[in-house]
Amino acid sequence: MIDSNHQPKRRVLVVGAGGVGTMASVALERSGMACVTAVLRSNYETVMKHGFDIESVDHGKLSGWRPTNLVNKVPTTSSETPFDYVVVTMKTIPEIMNVAEIIAPSVTPGHTAIVLLQNGIYIEPPIINAFPKNAVLSGPSYIGAHEKNGHVVHDDPDRFHLGVFHNDRLDKQYERRKLEDFASAYNGNGIEHAIIVDDIIHYRWRKALWNGIFNTMCAITQLDNAAIRRSGGEYSLIRPGMAEMAAIAAADGYDLGKDIVEEMVNATPIELSFRPSMLVDVDKGNPVEIEVILGNALRVARKKGVQTPILDNTYRFLKLIQTRLLVARGHIDQPIDIPTTDSI
Amino acid sequence: MIDSNHQPKRRVLVVGAGGVGTMASVALERSGMACVTAVLRSNYETVMKHGFDIESVDHGKLSGWRPTNLVNKVPTTSSETPFDYVVVTMKTIPEIMNVAEIIAPSVTPGHTAIVLLQNGIYIEPPIINAFPKNAVLSGPSYIGAHEKNGHVVHDDPDRFHLGVFHNDRLDKQYERRKLEDFASAYNGNGIEHAIIVDDIIHYRWRKALWNGIFNTMCAITQLDNAAIRRSGGEYSLIRPGMAEMAAIAAADGYDLGKDIVEEMVNATPIELSFRPSMLVDVDKGNPVEIEVILGNALRVARKKGVQTPILDNTYRFLKLIQTRLLVARGHIDQPIDIPTTDSI
Repeated sequence: MIDSNHQPKRRVLVVGAGGVGTMASVALERSGMACVTAVLRSNYETVMKHGFDIESVDHGKLSGWRPTNLVNKVPTTSSETPFDYVVVTMKTIPEIMNVAEIIAPSVTPGHTAIVLLQNGIYIEPPIINAFPKNAVLSGPSYIGAHEKNGHVVHDDPDRFHLGVFHNDRLDKQYERRKLEDFASAYNGNGIEHAIIVDDIIHYRWRKALWNGIFNTMCAITQLDNAAIRRSGGEYSLIRPGMAEMAAIAAADGYDLGKDIVEEMVNATPIELSFRPSMLVDVDKGNPVEIEVILGNALRVARKKGVQTPILDNTYRFLKLIQTRLLVARGHIDQPIDIPTTDSI
Repeated sequence: MIDSNHQPKRRVLVVGAGGVGTMASVALERSGMACVTAVLRSNYETVMKHGFDIESVDHGKLSGWRPTNLVNKVPTTSSETPFDYVVVTMKTIPEIMNVAEIIAPSVTPGHTAIVLLQNGIYIEPPIINAFPKNAVLSGPSYIGAHEKNGHVVHDDPDRFHLGVFHNDRLDKQYERRKLEDFASAYNGNGIEHAIIVDDIIHYRWRKALWNGIFNTMCAITQLDNAAIRRSGGEYSLIRPGMAEMAAIAAADGYDLGKDIVEEMVNATPIELSFRPSMLVDVDKGNPVEIEVILGNALRVARKKGVQTPILDNTYRFLKLIQTRLLVARGHIDQPIDIPTTDSI
């Protein structure tokens, strides 16, 4: 397959076909520069039969849309047709899953670049450890897109920062070429979805400042973003919690700026009520991404000696809620012995 | 009315006819030493028609049982027949109610002793302020008794410590006589329900150590007493939270003993799962007694300079949940302005 620039189309595997994964597939396919194999799970049969029905703020209405290939499990790569990119858009719940193990069959060492369009801070090192010869690209998504039984409502544009998460064993120019090539394919449909940045960790800390606080605190209290601010939470928990997160980032070498708390709070207007994704998970009884969003940040805090009393307690309450959710869904057994160690 | 000791029967008003109030009424009436007027609300019509049906670990099976008088609002006292005791067994939610205002019509200054069989720490001073000439008795209940539409299941014995909460304006001997007289009436049925103690505040702090921690933390996480221990909560939150509460009590002059945390945790066995009352309230969507159980304790901590990072955060999360519950029940409007002050 040859694209309009007479380069072969990139072979891309997208793992996780919820809203984020489906819209990534659409962007990549519509550029004409990639052919996507999408791994579906619960919606596999439906999408095989009927395709996706999509209403997209970026791409308009798409009816019966399918990527080039649909599969119901992560395929084993072949040496003749390795995947150029494996794009990971799954929720990350390390308590019950291992992303590296899940994608391993499809990764060709020294060839496949792994693109993490997932939530969290420092989710890349375990991937680099598992695939030391592969470039890792990282892009915290801000898309608003929800998939249910093959229907996708995509109402907030797919724009994100994308960067290399540097692997010391790899040549920086090689990593950069992978970054630019992937961005060109993702943006080739004419929309600048992916914005290339030099230091993606900075942007991941920025997102952690929102996700680690609004997401977690709304999940615990079952209040939406506006109600938690109006009910006293803005000053009792949200702002001081954000200040702690900014202090962790600073200790890690990332100065988010003196106005970051104000900026993030104001970016969450009380005129517009919505339920953050982690609260939606709690509403539905689904496990939450506590470890990658908050646990990883607190492990940096411990290493750097940053005091985080509010976020520590946030973590501990949410971790108990997480155990309840994991038990209720049958992911883990009800613990029998009493753990005497803390998990941060 | 003359009792077997040829003393007139005490006139007792019981305000709050849930499990605690109904079983207090039974104990007082069965002694033959008191006649009870019970204030009922939602169950008034049913109990007027059919009486209470009671299965009691202390008193056996009682069918169609009624106290001497049933009323559906707090009666205004008459000067000829003042109440000797007003026993308060209502849940205390100061955000939306004022106990002193509720009982005021039935209190005769200088005569009626007020008996608080309610949860909380330092719930007595507002009552003393409102009724400076009246003795205040205080007894944190440990009863297990649940009332629904006139049916009461009473499965854990009605035993409690009862003491004077001293009012500087009153003579200590006068207060003591009231205490002993009320206890004799409550215990006159042959069961030692009320155990007279010299310093009831000590026992209220003891109860706060359990209520302020297990109750609040189970309510936030929606885990029962056993599950929260088994899921890591025992060491991450329960024990250090209890240690903070013991430190507040100590700063207030009440040494609960060096083994108090161990003792309280062991008194909550993991072999027996139950949902603490505050969690049951959250389950049902009812407001919780956060201010009297935890807020009052933290106000003592602030005054005495005790650091309570875990309980502060527990309070703040639960206070947000409380606002959600109060709004959902229509007790308060959804706040519009963002509060900038903390409520501890």
